[in-house]
Amino acid sequence: MSAPLLIWTLDWVPPGPRGFVRDLRLRWAAEEAGLPYEVRTIPFEDRETNHLDRQPFGQVPYLTDGDVAIFESGAGLLHLARRSATLMPRDPVGEAQTKQWVLAALNSIEMVTVPWWYLTITGETNNGLTVWMDKRLAQLERVLSEREWLAADRFTVADLLMADVLRVAKVRAHGDRPATEAYVERLTSRPAFRKAHADQMAHFADADQMRAKPR
Amino acid sequence: MSAPLLIWTLDWVPPGPRGFVRDLRLRWAAEEAGLPYEVRTIPFEDRETNHLDRQPFGQVPYLTDGDVAIFESGAGLLHLARRSATLMPRDPVGEAQTKQWVLAALNSIEMVTVPWWYLTITGETNNGLTVWMDKRLAQLERVLSEREWLAADRFTVADLLMADVLRVAKVRAHGDRPATEAYVERLTSRPAFRKAHADQMAHFADADQMRAKPR
Repeated sequence: MSAPLLIWTLDWVPPGPRGFVRDLRLRWAAEEAGLPYEVRTIPFEDRETNHLDRQPFGQVPYLTDGDVAIFESGAGLLHLARRSATLMPRDPVGEAQTKQWVLAALNSIEMVTVPWWYLTITGETNNGLTVWMDKRLAQLERVLSEREWLAADRFTVADLLMADVLRVAKVRAHGDRPATEAYVERLTSRPAFRKAHADQMAHFADADQMRAKPR
Repeated sequence: MSAPLLIWTLDWVPPGPRGFVRDLRLRWAAEEAGLPYEVRTIPFEDRETNHLDRQPFGQVPYLTDGDVAIFESGAGLLHLARRSATLMPRDPVGEAQTKQWVLAALNSIEMVTVPWWYLTITGETNNGLTVWMDKRLAQLERVLSEREWLAADRFTVADLLMADVLRVAKVRAHGDRPATEAYVERLTSRPAFRKAHADQMAHFADADQMRAKPR
């Protein structure tokens, strides 16, 4: 029996980002695929510099799978998809469709929504990226109004990732996009998402208790 | 013998983006791998809406390989990497390293540099993303000062993509980053890049001549 996957995240974060730290993507994928995993942590203190040898941008998560160490949540998802057909079909057409939508989630949607969000938290709610973001989200709304799944007429890791990207963007974005909202609702109702989300919340809540203990 | 790859791009663009349209990434990868390909075009007029059935965000390039159709340049590169060990090692560790750096180029670097550039062309040269971009580029400079290649101690598609992302960012970014500059220079000196770049420039120049002909 092979060793479990190790999903690395922070040992604690403030309440704001809880439920959104990207280890959730890897937890969710592992739950969908039924792949055994354990969570490992790095200290929140000095989090931007204490693991640069493992993640040169000082971010989480990263994943270890035996000899394989891999950072970037998207790359971690592709690695898990390689291990489980639940996450990605094995025929070349289905695999290509899955990968293109994984990349679209990261490079066509999140490339706009995350910088947009970054500008809003520094005070520019209606900022120079708003028009671009609204255009991309409208293009995606059109796609989601015509189909249930992004790739291969079935659930794939592309839906998992896109739903997570949109889940973050949803509360921040403007406009009426019913297909997008229904899609996010559908994906985040899956038992694997709910378990991953609850586990992440519990992980950080446990850390609160550890911190509260007298040392 | 299988049909050649088809790389789809626009039939014409104005001088500004020539040499930077992302079909270059696919041309370059195909050249490195020695994979036969042909270039196909869609009309520049109505370019945001005339191929939404193939690319829902109205962008180029996309790739067709027999029955497989794939958009997002990053996904196209991963598809080509699946076809050629020149672009990605076949051992799990090397493959994971390659994928993580492909994703880092798109989701850690380009996710900042492209929105930064988008804000500059709308008039905000020193904008709300400048500090974030400088931080990411400094983190990457540290990596590139310590090694020749990003993944697996050899050229991979991750270097191809990162060099292209940085090539665009280079002329726009601030600061003194000698390892990054040397890296971009090293990668863009490769014969496969030079051919791909020259071919793209010629492709659009030919279109100028076609346009200039009396109809």
